[in-house]
Parts: sequence; structure tokens; C-alpha cells
Amino acid sequence: MSEQALRYDLSQSDIPRQWYNIQADLPRPLPPVLHPGTKQPVGPDDLAPLFPMALIGQEVSQERYIDIPDEVREIYKLWRPTPLLRARRLEKALDTPAHIYYKYEGVSPSGSHKLNTATAQAWYNKAEGIGGLTTETGAGQWGTALAQACNFFDMTCRVYMVRISYEQKPYRRAIMQSFGAEVSASPGDSTQAGRMILEQDPDSTGSLGIAISEAVEAAATSGGRYKYALGSVLNHVLMHQTVIGQECLQQMALADEYPDVVVGPVGGGSNFAGIALPFLQRNLREGQSTRLLGVEPAACPSLTRGTYAYDFGDTAGMTPLVKMYTLGHGFVPAPLHAGGLRYHGMASIICELYDQGLMEAQALPQLETFEAALTFARSEGIIAAPEAAHGIAGAIREAQAAKEAGDERVILFNLCGHGHFDMSAYDAYLGGELSDYEYPQAAIERAMAELPQI
Amino acid sequence: MSEQALRYDLSQSDIPRQWYNIQADLPRPLPPVLHPGTKQPVGPDDLAPLFPMALIGQEVSQERYIDIPDEVREIYKLWRPTPLLRARRLEKALDTPAHIYYKYEGVSPSGSHKLNTATAQAWYNKAEGIGGLTTETGAGQWGTALAQACNFFDMTCRVYMVRISYEQKPYRRAIMQSFGAEVSASPGDSTQAGRMILEQDPDSTGSLGIAISEAVEAAATSGGRYKYALGSVLNHVLMHQTVIGQECLQQMALADEYPDVVVGPVGGGSNFAGIALPFLQRNLREGQSTRLLGVEPAACPSLTRGTYAYDFGDTAGMTPLVKMYTLGHGFVPAPLHAGGLRYHGMASIICELYDQGLMEAQALPQLETFEAALTFARSEGIIAAPEAAHGIAGAIREAQAAKEAGDERVILFNLCGHGHFDMSAYDAYLGGELSDYEYPQAAIERAMAELPQI
Repeated sequence: MSEQALRYDLSQSDIPRQWYNIQADLPRPLPPVLHPGTKQPVGPDDLAPLFPMALIGQEVSQERYIDIPDEVREIYKLWRPTPLLRARRLEKALDTPAHIYYKYEGVSPSGSHKLNTATAQAWYNKAEGIGGLTTETGAGQWGTALAQACNFFDMTCRVYMVRISYEQKPYRRAIMQSFGAEVSASPGDSTQAGRMILEQDPDSTGSLGIAISEAVEAAATSGGRYKYALGSVLNHVLMHQTVIGQECLQQMALADEYPDVVVGPVGGGSNFAGIALPFLQRNLREGQSTRLLGVEPAACPSLTRGTYAYDFGDTAGMTPLVKMYTLGHGFVPAPLHAGGLRYHGMASIICELYDQGLMEAQALPQLETFEAALTFARSEGIIAAPEAAHGIAGAIREAQAAKEAGDERVILFNLCGHGHFDMSAYDAYLGGELSDYEYPQAAIERAMAELPQI
Repeated sequence: MSEQALRYDLSQSDIPRQWYNIQADLPRPLPPVLHPGTKQPVGPDDLAPLFPMALIGQEVSQERYIDIPDEVREIYKLWRPTPLLRARRLEKALDTPAHIYYKYEGVSPSGSHKLNTATAQAWYNKAEGIGGLTTETGAGQWGTALAQACNFFDMTCRVYMVRISYEQKPYRRAIMQSFGAEVSASPGDSTQAGRMILEQDPDSTGSLGIAISEAVEAAATSGGRYKYALGSVLNHVLMHQTVIGQECLQQMALADEYPDVVVGPVGGGSNFAGIALPFLQRNLREGQSTRLLGVEPAACPSLTRGTYAYDFGDTAGMTPLVKMYTLGHGFVPAPLHAGGLRYHGMASIICELYDQGLMEAQALPQLETFEAALTFARSEGIIAAPEAAHGIAGAIREAQAAKEAGDERVILFNLCGHGHFDMSAYDAYLGGELSDYEYPQAAIERAMAELPQI
């Protein structure tokens, strides 16, 4: 048997030294973010209670590249560069002529790509003298990453964890606590928002929208001791993830191939952006024509069935208004094991790309994603997070299309995290307890009718 | 900040092509294994119902190197070479002049070093036409590895999982099932051994000893369709793990250092052997003088408080007799979260090394290991398995000794697995629910009194 390369590893000196800011290359600038009260574009001062000035600056920057601080890059070295693998065993299992590559972000200590931005956000806050960060977490990937990042820079981390997850996922709580985070169930009585909800419904199991309100309030009322951190959606968050795609460009060159299509799951948009944007730059500036495919759940189809309109980022309607593909901020996604993809809206950058025809989107049913994840696990050995399983399922569809067309399509997808803390979902799938759920058009239309008038 | 290397990565072509067999270099040969009935040395025929001839051959081979089959090496490429990291953040946290390196085997798809031998054992069985393997598992690391390995070679895998783990760790069961393994609670009514136990005690929560009996019976009575696989203790199992230490030799050279001391946890002995034996070869043949330190739990101190005598490998006294440091096959270790280290005996190779003064051993209390694991996690980002935490604690003691002595001791330890499926242990530790347990000498002496007369 000849020496077939399966992995394309880089050395630590190959870790990117800059993030790539797509705003410099967008054919049309992003629509402004509006103040929820005045409905006028927000300025830096409006955001200052929540974010450090450096990140506010990154949010609107038009610079093509922004230097990664040395201290952040030193932390990245704990797990970066992440491996790129050729999925030869999966190709064989699918009997496809396609060449399938995957970038594996699950090797990060937190188990997902989230640590790329958590580390950066913690450092910029630390640099401006902030002692701690607040945030919300649902499934727990983001809370884990921020807990680790704060720990690395000796900052405190306060995580508002959706109560039902807090109770059902004690191990997610334990890992955050192991890194020194204060984790509380949301809603709780430490915030006005939490108390208000509990008054109305003492048995509330919480929601991401409520947890956001609590985390934002805790930061805003901390007298500057805490600021707030978000794990996706914002421009600077997506930018921090571009280390993924930049490494892929180097690794695909090592493999002496170039992707025909880049696939990633889309929830808030950060992991897809992380792998896709550096390839989009090649499309826009160097005449490449790689297809970029975002995969969302059929139960929460923001891009494929939403409307491109101004809407709130949270359920309660307290955040700034962002123009995005939305199912309506009142939309309640069906229970879905890919909790990280249960978001009514989408990152502004992703929405613009989709609206400008620079990327494609596809909504896949839950059962197909778990079936794909098992096919992948049995071929490549890795149990993927249910969110990541959407990327796998999208890649498998592409590989099957390549087989039908008889072409050697080169497919690259982002395996954004492992599923070690999601085995209850696999257990339910293997036990036949999961089902598909396509949200009824009428429900979407009802939620859409509540869109704010701009 | 200068470009400080934290990781020393090898390429896939650096994966060892041979396993190292310490038997070729031992100053004194291993004592023979005896038949439990005749008390005469066992021959290949005695073992043939349970193991394929290739592995029986490896068990007694005196060849210094044994080629790794290409098909096994191809599977290794899914995660090997594993990274060697310099724990600079831990060094800083400990304020020690020591240089601390760790080899991280937790990047394997199964999450531990166990997949190195599981892959090899599955392949050799497959090559001799065996369709499936049976095994036991307690904490679940070994069962997971064998489930994955069997899946890679399209073999069936039947895992007898200690009932209390089966019930308390549904996610461990789910991951094995995700790879297609048949997992049943032990004792169960599919074997005579299981039925016998259940008749005596219908509420039995099981033990590793019972599960071994069930797995062995299932293989022996399968008419050759199944053979049996063991995850540690045996010579060939330890040999398969030497890929770890061989990679470390290359990586320490990249770091331009050589370890003064190599540290690893010891339960059955395979992960310690994996990292230590290639360095022992340098000691024996090239005049190096690296100290080799095995760390065991104070609650199950086979090497430090056991007797070097012939004893059974299982509780029921059905296996061949092996000369080993033993606490007595009737010894019941205290409940301990490092389930993988709860074994009354020890691999024959490790026992000979210890008896010949070629390695050192240390017994550490449980709380110190969890404290060490948290210090490590907060420095390096990785949540270690409770077994692996013993290696960390041993390394930290060495680093503290180096500080007191004011020397730049180079410490290398084996971080044999992650703790993603052991968060309940961390939860208990953080909640103050764990305690230390030193087994009373009287209990050990009682168990020793039952040693078989040879």
C-alpha cells in the first residue's frame, strides 16, 4: 500500500497573523445597524456599555486585514493550526469520485471553533481593563469557549445558561465551572429581567432570548466591571473565525487541490463564514469560482424561507435592529438537537452574501443530518456535534451529486466541533426517538407579521 | 513576543513502522504464564480459543521490532502522529524552572491511547478470518476503542459493560452503539457466567471480573466466530502502545531536549509502557539514564504495596496465572473515579521492570490528582481523564521538586486521554463530594492470604 496522505498539517508558524475582513471586499456595503428606539444608525457610544472600543472598531472596520495580537496567537498555538483531512474512507463508503476534505475544529480545548473568537474577545476586553465578561449559552459550546478564554487571561466569566439545559446538561455546567466560570440557570433572580420572567412564570425553563437579556443587563449594570460577549452573528466574531479558511487555503495547496465547493452549517453564521470568507475573497479578487454552500436545519430555515428585513436580534426586542434574513424574532424553532442552529435570524454578512448571490443555502431535515453523522463517524472515527452534522450532510449530498455527474468534484467542509457532550442526541436517534420537523409556513408568516416597521 | 514553539508536530510519514518489543532487551526474561489447572506454562494451543495466532506469537516474541501492518498504519493516520506539547503555561503557573512536555493521546477518535492496540488487535483477528470480537468494559474507554476498531474493519463487536456503568453512563453506551457495537449490561442472561451470578444476586451491579468472564465465555463458546480482546496487561498490548514513546523520541529531538524523567499513570500498565519503553531501550542500550515513573492510585497501590507473586488476572480465578505485583485477586479497590486504574494486578512487563529496579512507582491520593487536573486544565485548556490526571499529578510533583532543587529538569508525561465522558467526576470533585481513600493494610493482607499456591 502506498503512503497516502490523509492529513495536511501545518506548523505553528503557519497560523495566520491577521484576520481577514470581508467588509473591505464586499461589492455593496453592509446595511447599517439601527438603534431600537430612534431607528437611526447606532454609533460607537451606543455600543460602549457592552463592548470594548477595539471590538466596536472591528465591527465597522473597512480594513482588509487586522493583526492578530501576539497574546491571542500564543493561545491559538494550544490547538492551532487545526488539521485538514482527506476523508478517503468516507469517499469509499459513498463510492464517489469526489475528493472530500474536512477541516476539524473540534481539536480545540473547548471542542469547537468558538474558542477562536472567545480568545480574541477576552483579550481585547482585558486590554481595555475589563475584569470579566457575561454571556448566555444554550447548548453550551459557546459558554465553554468563553469560560476557557476568560480563564486564560485571568478574567471572571459569568454564564447565564438556559435553565432547561442547566438541568439536563450538568456536565456542560461542570466543564464551565472547571474553568472557573460562574454558571447560573436562566431565568434567575439575580437580574431584573430574570425576576420579571419568574414573576410571570415561576416554572420557566428559559430561552436563549431570556438568557441574552440577563447577560446584557448584568454587563450594562456592572459599572464597567463586566462587558458582554456574543459567540456569533456580529461582524467581528465572523472575522475572528477566518483563521479557519486561511489555514485551509494553505492546506489545500499542500494537497495540491482547490475546492469546487465549500460547505458549512449556518446558525448564526460564524463557522460557515470562518471557512468560506477566505475562499470568497479568491472568488472576488482572483477570479476563482468556488461555490459556497451554507446548510441550515429545515426546522429553522432563516436563509431559505426567511425574509430580508430589519429585525431584533433577541426575542424580547431589546437589541439593535439588524437587516437580516429572519423568520421573525417571535419565531420559536421546533425542538432540535442542533441547538446552535436554532436562531431566527442570521449574521448580517451572511445575509448580504446570500442576497448578492455570492453563496448558496440549503435546508436539510434533522434525520438526514444524523444519518450523515453516523456514516461519517463509522468512516472517519469522529462523532460530530449535531450542528456540525449539517455540514457533513451537505457534503455528502455534494458527493452523491458528483457521483451522478461522474465528476471528481473537490469538496471541503467545516467540521466545526465534536459531539462528546451531545451523546444524548445520538442516543435518541439510535433509539428511533427523533423525527423531522418542517416549520409550517403559516407559523412563519405569523412571526413575520410582527416585524418592526422601518 | 518571540515565536515560542508549544507543539512539536510530526508528519504522517514519521508514524513508526514497527512496534518495539522490550522482551528483546530485558536483562532477565519474563516469568512464564501458568495454566490455572495444571500450573504448567501455557502453550499457544491453550490460548488459541481466545486469541489469533499472530497475537499469541507477539505475546512471546523475542524479536526487537515487529512490523506494523500497512492497514493498521493507514488507520493510525486518522489521528497519528499525536502532538507533543511544551506546557509553558503550566510551568508558569507552577513557577518552576522545569521544562514540562506532554504527549497528548486524547486526540484519537476514541479519546485515549486505547485505539492504538484496538486497531492492531482487530486487524490481526480479521486477517485470520475472525468475524467479531468480545470484550468487557468498565469506565468505557476500552469498549469505545474496540467498537471503533471493529467498525473500521467491518467486524462485529460485543461489549459486556459493567451494569452499574451501563446504567450510569448511557452516553458511553451510545458512543459504542454509534460505531455499531452490541452493548449489553453485565451480568446478563446471555452467558452461563452471567446467569450464575444473577441467580445468586438478581440485583448484581456487576464488576470488571464478571464482565471478563462473560466476554471470555462468549468468545470461547462461539465456535470460532468470535475471539476475545483485552485492552491492557498483555505483552502484545503494551507493545502496540510503543508508537507513543517512539514518536516522543522524534519530537523531543525536534524540541532539542531529552527527558530526565518520563511519567505515566499505571493501571494495567499499557499507557505507561507505551511512553516509557522506547526510553528504557535508550537506558539499556545507549547509556541514557532517564528515570521512569509510574503513578498509581493510593486506593489501588499494586506496585507500591502489593507482593510479587503468581495470581489470577480475574476475580473468579479462571484466567491463567501470571507473576505480578498483586493486591490479591480478591482485592476490591475502593470506589475511585479513575476506573481504569482499579486493577488488583499489573502487566507482567511492568512488574519485571519494577522488580529489576528499572522503573520507579508512586501512589497518589485521589484529591491530589483532581487538583492537579484542574491546575492543568486551567493552564493548558485540556480536561484530562481521571486516569490521565495521575500522570499530571506525578509530573507536577516532579516540577515542584525541580523548583526546590533549582534545576531545569526535563519532564515528559503521557496525557493518555481526555475526560469528556468523565465530567460527573469533576462535578463531584467541584462539589466537594470526593475523598481520599487509603486501603487498610489488613484488607490487603486478607486478600493476599488467598493467593494461589505455586
